Amino acid sequence: MGGILVSGEKKRITVDIHNRSYTVVGTESESHVKLVASLVDQKMKEIQQMNQSLDTTSLAVLTAVNAVNDYMKLKEEYATLLGSLKGKEDK
Amino acid sequence: MGGILVSGEKKRITVDIHNRSYTVVGTESESHVKLVASLVDQKMKEIQQMNQSLDTTSLAVLTAVNAVNDYMKLKEEYATLLGSLKGKEDK
Repeated sequence: MGGILVSGEKKRITVDIHNRSYTVVGTESESHVKLVASLVDQKMKEIQQMNQSLDTTSLAVLTAVNAVNDYMKLKEEYATLLGSLKGKEDK
Repeated sequence: MGGILVSGEKKRITVDIHNRSYTVVGTESESHVKLVASLVDQKMKEIQQMNQSLDTTSLAVLTAVNAVNDYMKLKEEYATLLGSLKGKEDK
C-alpha cells in the first residue's frame, strides 16, 4: 500500500476522523485526502452503530480490516478483468 | 464497503492485530480473514516505524486511510481497464 504516508517530506494535510485530528502526509491533493478521510469516518460510524460497546481503537482497527478486505476483493476482480482483456487480445 | 462486519448472524473469527484480539463477523473463510488481519497488523507496524509516537488508534485510523486510498486508486484503474475492454468489444 502506498500513496498516503504519515511521515516524509511531502504535503501535510490535517483531517478530522471520529472527533480527532490526524496529519496525513503524501502527494495526494487536499480534496482527495479529505474525501478518503470522510469515507473512513463514515465507516467507523457504521461499525459503531452495529456495536456500540466498541472503543475507538477497535472501530479504527475493524475499519482498516474492512478497507483492506475490500481492496483485496477489488484486486481479484481487477486481475480477472485483466485476464479477460488479454484473452480478447490473443484472438 | 462490505464483506467483513463486526456484528450479525454470520461466522465469528478471532484475529490478533497489534497485540489485541478482535472478533470479525462475516461470510469470509477463516484463512482469508486471518490474511487480511495480518496485512492490517503489518501496515500498522510500518506506519509505527515511520512515526513511533503514534498511539494504536492513530495507527489504525491511518492504516484505514491508506487502505481506502488504495481502494479508490484501484477502482479508478478498474474503471479505466473496463473502458478499454468495452472499446475493444465495440471494434
